[in-house]
Amino acid sequence: MNHETDPKSVSLTERSARRRVVIVGGVAGGASCAARLRRLDESVEIVMFDRGPYVSFANCGLPYYVGNVISDERRLLVASRELFRERFNVEVYTETEVTAVDRSARTIMARDLRTGDSRTERYDVLVLSPGAAPIRPPLPGVDSPGVFAVRTIPDSRRIRSWISDHNAKHAVVVGGGFIGLEMVENLIHRELSVAILEKLPQVMPPLDAEMAVPLMEHLVAKGVQLHLGDGLAGIEARAGGGLVVVAESGARLPADLVILAIGVRPETGLAKDCGLKLGPRGGIAVDAQMRTSDPNIWAVGDVVEVQDVLTGQETVLPLAGPANRQGRVAAESIAGRGTRFRGVQATAVVGVLGLTVASTGASEKGLRRAGAVGFEKVYLHPGQHAGYYPGASPIHLKLLFSVPDGRILGAQAVGLEGVDKRVDVIATAIQFNGTVHDLAEAELCYAPQYGAAKDPVNLAGMLAQNVLNGDMPVADWLDLDRASALLLDVREPDEFAAGHLPNAINLPLSELRSRYLELPNDRKIWLCCAVGQRAYYASRFLTQHGYRCSNLSGGYTTYKALKAAGLAP
Amino acid sequence: MNHETDPKSVSLTERSARRRVVIVGGVAGGASCAARLRRLDESVEIVMFDRGPYVSFANCGLPYYVGNVISDERRLLVASRELFRERFNVEVYTETEVTAVDRSARTIMARDLRTGDSRTERYDVLVLSPGAAPIRPPLPGVDSPGVFAVRTIPDSRRIRSWISDHNAKHAVVVGGGFIGLEMVENLIHRELSVAILEKLPQVMPPLDAEMAVPLMEHLVAKGVQLHLGDGLAGIEARAGGGLVVVAESGARLPADLVILAIGVRPETGLAKDCGLKLGPRGGIAVDAQMRTSDPNIWAVGDVVEVQDVLTGQETVLPLAGPANRQGRVAAESIAGRGTRFRGVQATAVVGVLGLTVASTGASEKGLRRAGAVGFEKVYLHPGQHAGYYPGASPIHLKLLFSVPDGRILGAQAVGLEGVDKRVDVIATAIQFNGTVHDLAEAELCYAPQYGAAKDPVNLAGMLAQNVLNGDMPVADWLDLDRASALLLDVREPDEFAAGHLPNAINLPLSELRSRYLELPNDRKIWLCCAVGQRAYYASRFLTQHGYRCSNLSGGYTTYKALKAAGLAP
Repeated sequence: MNHETDPKSVSLTERSARRRVVIVGGVAGGASCAARLRRLDESVEIVMFDRGPYVSFANCGLPYYVGNVISDERRLLVASRELFRERFNVEVYTETEVTAVDRSARTIMARDLRTGDSRTERYDVLVLSPGAAPIRPPLPGVDSPGVFAVRTIPDSRRIRSWISDHNAKHAVVVGGGFIGLEMVENLIHRELSVAILEKLPQVMPPLDAEMAVPLMEHLVAKGVQLHLGDGLAGIEARAGGGLVVVAESGARLPADLVILAIGVRPETGLAKDCGLKLGPRGGIAVDAQMRTSDPNIWAVGDVVEVQDVLTGQETVLPLAGPANRQGRVAAESIAGRGTRFRGVQATAVVGVLGLTVASTGASEKGLRRAGAVGFEKVYLHPGQHAGYYPGASPIHLKLLFSVPDGRILGAQAVGLEGVDKRVDVIATAIQFNGTVHDLAEAELCYAPQYGAAKDPVNLAGMLAQNVLNGDMPVADWLDLDRASALLLDVREPDEFAAGHLPNAINLPLSELRSRYLELPNDRKIWLCCAVGQRAYYASRFLTQHGYRCSNLSGGYTTYKALKAAGLAP
Repeated sequence: MNHETDPKSVSLTERSARRRVVIVGGVAGGASCAARLRRLDESVEIVMFDRGPYVSFANCGLPYYVGNVISDERRLLVASRELFRERFNVEVYTETEVTAVDRSARTIMARDLRTGDSRTERYDVLVLSPGAAPIRPPLPGVDSPGVFAVRTIPDSRRIRSWISDHNAKHAVVVGGGFIGLEMVENLIHRELSVAILEKLPQVMPPLDAEMAVPLMEHLVAKGVQLHLGDGLAGIEARAGGGLVVVAESGARLPADLVILAIGVRPETGLAKDCGLKLGPRGGIAVDAQMRTSDPNIWAVGDVVEVQDVLTGQETVLPLAGPANRQGRVAAESIAGRGTRFRGVQATAVVGVLGLTVASTGASEKGLRRAGAVGFEKVYLHPGQHAGYYPGASPIHLKLLFSVPDGRILGAQAVGLEGVDKRVDVIATAIQFNGTVHDLAEAELCYAPQYGAAKDPVNLAGMLAQNVLNGDMPVADWLDLDRASALLLDVREPDEFAAGHLPNAINLPLSELRSRYLELPNDRKIWLCCAVGQRAYYASRFLTQHGYRCSNLSGGYTTYKALKAAGLAP
């Protein structure tokens, strides 16, 4: 039972009929908006346009389709045109690009990409969900055959074919962010050798540099070549076939296949052309109900700017979770409900060749960039589950919190297992404006294969509490090179001998009670051990015996990461 | 540098010397208290007694030591006597039982179990952490050789030896709770056939019966015999060797090995004898600082009663996480700080042969038992990660929430993967007194191998929102047998034919828009599909066309579990 007539036949004089909602872009936010709106309102007409051949496809799955982890392309199609029509009475026009919006006439211009024909379509409500486009820098050779971005199913299909048809052996991935890293994993699944060329001195830009170190070490251990701190200059044809990626440094990286994963840019062309207000970050400005500066136009997904709940600043966050929720909020708003989008906190995860990297909230560099003061941080490296149960492996965890109120500002974690769980728990605490005291008290699942009686989340909270209440002052690693403090390493001599901080002296915790009088009591002492626990015990002992102590949080394990990131001497 | 003298030489006239803290029981709560107290106060004397040969061992690891998953017994020793002395200056007396407390004299009587000698020890502060003892019902044969409880390392060691020495092939585990199930898993690891004898008609008593069904099916699929709703009558010797477990029903289960895992009882003997106040549940009554009715005595761990934050009622919860935090709170209180224990919410997890079962907060039966009204529930069965990524498997999830404010009351989940993560997130939301609206808005990690753009937690929240705001009224499954409503199944005909609710009629969602006028509009309609999603879509459509609809939450999947649990016709 389809009440729709062909939109081509709807003349503009019929405006007085049913309220007509036109959605531009049928993936994530747009699709979510259409489905939710229909559930709320059977009376409106809903029409959805997409430039591509599919709507509602799993764009987060594209790298895995390239890697043949997902082998059947049809698995990527979450909902078809037919399903939208049959189930939701939503008319879908694919391969149809919306090229212009006439806000005063409340019409759009839609061009059928197969025929080239354009037509005018009226709307009462317009929802813009065009997404964000991969950045293609205007450099020589970026449009060469064999150079790909990863945005659509046809993109992935072309990469798959290129690998097979050209028997590709070497790939260069330009950009070490989420999509770049997922492509690295999947190209390795396809048995290509992979090099990453990244302009920043680290991969995974949302992370603080030292937290990206375990990931970079993991990539190198898996045979990935890292070319960091070096940008793309151009792409040339290679004598005898194939390509050469030329870096700004002059380095030349041979490639049978190049993936451009430098980042994405909100597709604001339509919005700009029709005079919608953009925000400071270049996305479409919307209110908490996802309404643009035009009361008849909503916008959702990667194209909009939303508020970061931690910094209060506008941000563009091209992630599927928020896009889906925004689509839902817009639908509720269009249907007359007052639902508000609560903003974003930038929870994200990436899996790379067995390693999981996740973060939520603000990073330290983000806080510094925003001029934040009055925050502190702790590092820890607890096992993902009880150490006595086989298979324990460390989660490298950094927790940022405000001082003195202990409000959680952000967390970053890297490890083989249990990483997403801990970040999800901390993300939830952030959602409630929680403090490190709350983390210390969290009552989480514990059995030996799942966690510990003191879960990593509890430990992070307890460490931060110790900092806040003065039980364990922390020294800032970034001050290490200008520290006048005595650096005291309380590990055992064999551990110390295997590597230690420059100028540190060694007095093991196991001998501290009998030998502490050897230490000078007129000098500040900065304590270090392997991960921070023994240094904490030592600091409690020494502080109570009149010494002035601070801890180097995370111990030598964190030091090595900071040093690798160039943040410690 | 050990400042301690032998306690035997400390005469009671020396009371004026250092403040002396005596801790009875050196596992979990007691050990945690000792270590934390030392970190806070170097000046007190700390002495810890334990009846057993070890302190601070991993009692949650004992089943896995039996199963040889943990093969090296030393892995279970979290901290030794020597470590306590050397690192924390805590004197530990193992194999020493505290047999009496003289509160007016502030002394205890300690008996060395190796020599039988008793001595008097003074205290300024006493901390009771004796734990809980496995229940051994006074039935014939429960003390036979080959019948074991699982509380200590020697217990586990004896079970290991018994299995090897007697070439044990068949085990009966009496009790289907946490420890019973963990023993089942581990005995299967040791290649024994296992039968469970459980008095209740379900395993995992904290769960609502229908939520235990997937676990029971999993156990049966793994070859475990379930004897439910049948208690232990006694244990007899079997002709030709071995044992026979006799059930109350008269059933006789042959066994080479019997595990008693009926439950535990707080070890309140000492507390009772010295007149400390007990609570309504039989544990030691304590305040929020873990102080007993005697201002010089604290108590922590499995022996105490604490407040359930959801019901406000006193409860005894023998779990390691709370025990550790209670030890920490007691230490802070003894050191003069005002830290308070926030109560418990009963977050728990168990892994059974690849399946994970977890819960937090109140169960439906717990709410009913407490006389709660004004709550509602939803069932859902989402994949642990995006369906388009290989390996998706369902999480069976039940969310309980209060009406109309949406406060989260509890959650139960069962599945192969991702179960503990979702329960931990919901547990965290409960900690903040969160609502289902908060769950709907949670911003959690999403990449296809970790979750979904709408995470199971989001979906649970959204479903509950739909119930609260009237978008999707739910029918109570428990009313199914007396329902006058039309039962409408909107699955496809082939699904319907494979099994459906008694008296249900079939009209697939895919045909609903064209055929809905076939439905009577003078009768309430209860909608059902496979898991609830299509029924939800159908209900939105029908409601807007004037029908009165309610959904049978969780669909036919939930129905099958309810039916198996005897809760649906």
